[in-house]
Amino acid sequence: MTDSYDPSNIFAKILRREIPCHKVFEDEVALAFMDIMPRCDGHCLVIPKAPARTLLDIAPDALSQLITRVQRVAKAAVAATEADGLTLQQFSEAAGGQEVFHLHFHILPRRHGVALRPPAGPVADHATLARQAEAIRAMLVA
Amino acid sequence: MTDSYDPSNIFAKILRREIPCHKVFEDEVALAFMDIMPRCDGHCLVIPKAPARTLLDIAPDALSQLITRVQRVAKAAVAATEADGLTLQQFSEAAGGQEVFHLHFHILPRRHGVALRPPAGPVADHATLARQAEAIRAMLVA
Repeated sequence: MTDSYDPSNIFAKILRREIPCHKVFEDEVALAFMDIMPRCDGHCLVIPKAPARTLLDIAPDALSQLITRVQRVAKAAVAATEADGLTLQQFSEAAGGQEVFHLHFHILPRRHGVALRPPAGPVADHATLARQAEAIRAMLVA
Repeated sequence: MTDSYDPSNIFAKILRREIPCHKVFEDEVALAFMDIMPRCDGHCLVIPKAPARTLLDIAPDALSQLITRVQRVAKAAVAATEADGLTLQQFSEAAGGQEVFHLHFHILPRRHGVALRPPAGPVADHATLARQAEAIRAMLVA
């Protein structure tokens, strides 16, 4: 079912620093950055540095390492946005909802009574994204 | 933000075998079983055996072990349902969409052009769930 990895995808370009991002976290395993079409305040993405297309083709050991980064960033995003909860989403292949074919986890800090905005909404103001990224980074250090 | 773990939740009762389930997978780390209100064919849940309320309070090592079981069950569910993709969801706390307060990952095999059914829909026919669980188990063995 899974096609092979295509290194021309936009997240691969972000990893190669060909395209900028509002970075939240980086180590040898993962990169996390703000979603530029956020469905809620603090919406960010965590991706593996190693090429992987979906949840189905990443090596189990790499996935084990990645998910601890997902958890760390999720805790920080919830703290930074003073959220009441968290929705985690991962879309594999177009039928699963995937649009960029480098594995990524969506971290969506949630508040009581606030619905997610529709997907593929307007691109957020970059100053706002930069401020949110800074707030999440501060919680990762704390 | 996260409240403490309450062992009276329905998934804890399933783990203690006080309530039956349509089991898909079990080892020392995780249990997987069919969602009885499926949003798509093959909709199943993967939960840790150790008590954890949300993605935010599970120990990182336990989460690393759990996610490899999530991946194994996801691959089998996609294969068993001949799906075109996968949607993975994890809801932490009520604001995040959580209804049962034992950490669980939703595995949703997806097909092109088939939308998810709304959450909290009707309880599925048990013969159908048993047949789907058997088909997924067969793919785990294969």
